[in-house]
Amino acid sequence: MLITFEGIDASGKSTQAKLFADFLSLSHEKNIFVREPGGTKTGEDIRQILLHKDYGMFAETEFLLFSAARAQLTREVIIPALQKGYIVVTDRFSDSSLAYQGYGRGLDIDTVKQISCFAVNNLCPDMTFFIDIPVEDAIDRMRKEMKSDRIEVEGSDFFDRVRRGYLKLEEDHASRIHVIDGTRDVEQIQDEIREIFLNHPVK
Amino acid sequence: MLITFEGIDASGKSTQAKLFADFLSLSHEKNIFVREPGGTKTGEDIRQILLHKDYGMFAETEFLLFSAARAQLTREVIIPALQKGYIVVTDRFSDSSLAYQGYGRGLDIDTVKQISCFAVNNLCPDMTFFIDIPVEDAIDRMRKEMKSDRIEVEGSDFFDRVRRGYLKLEEDHASRIHVIDGTRDVEQIQDEIREIFLNHPVK
Repeated sequence: MLITFEGIDASGKSTQAKLFADFLSLSHEKNIFVREPGGTKTGEDIRQILLHKDYGMFAETEFLLFSAARAQLTREVIIPALQKGYIVVTDRFSDSSLAYQGYGRGLDIDTVKQISCFAVNNLCPDMTFFIDIPVEDAIDRMRKEMKSDRIEVEGSDFFDRVRRGYLKLEEDHASRIHVIDGTRDVEQIQDEIREIFLNHPVK
Repeated sequence: MLITFEGIDASGKSTQAKLFADFLSLSHEKNIFVREPGGTKTGEDIRQILLHKDYGMFAETEFLLFSAARAQLTREVIIPALQKGYIVVTDRFSDSSLAYQGYGRGLDIDTVKQISCFAVNNLCPDMTFFIDIPVEDAIDRMRKEMKSDRIEVEGSDFFDRVRRGYLKLEEDHASRIHVIDGTRDVEQIQDEIREIFLNHPVK
């Protein structure tokens, strides 16, 4: 079972993903937790390149780099773990490319879908939690976390397009993607995620 | 005008590409010469990752990384240079991915074509020189250049599939791809390339 966490920057999705993996461990569920981009030696090297966007990286380059990291993570870690019966929890997966590089940066959605499917060998998450917060809240949090450079580089319009992209994805995949109100307390959010997971019919 | 040089490892294509760029400069043709993967800051960083294949890189990851480097090179360097009227000479381009990751590693050819077209914004070379040498000659040269680790990693069968891939590409694009016998002297090969270039109808 592959469970992915998605959301705009500073939405709290990484915190929720880690707490959820801890919950699985406490419940004696075999699980692994991986973050994107990264999770493999090659992927972490790619992550370093993606952090240096001051070189003037084009959207197509960015998308292909995320896809390369994801291709490696999928084949090296995720698929072998799924085959051994592990629950795999990921902080971001293919939906991030659709939301960020597709809806956010304006790359053609169908092309992003096709290349993403190639990258992950057509693997689709069984369950996705989209931690949703208003863009203004995200910007406040980024300012508090001293990450305001990210706002200046991208602009708030960008995060608005990404958020609306996620909501569009949820419309198209309502049975897989659960929209979670991320403005509440960390514990409240986590409780809702666990409840949805526990009530989910196991395949 | 975009002119690309292709061939298997140790075919001499890099030498020929550089000599050809020198010839253009001596002929007062505005030109730039770039190598792949690389030619941009991001591309050189990607090149470093591709050199460390001992991490167990999957063919899909490798292909997406080459595509990312090429996407950046195309938009940052090649297209702006073409728009200023420069002749752009490249050591490898999209045909390398078709030959190496497609025919060599067995990735689906149509998928490689589609993703390659996306990476280079559908840019197609005007003229391609495929410097062809028998695989046994390439292996002899690699041994002499102390690059026999590459033979051990890939196996001679791999280079044979790549070479046959290039010949297949030439069949499909006979008016663009010129097969050049690379077993002769450096000067003889270069003379033939220049002659083909000079007799080529300018678009």
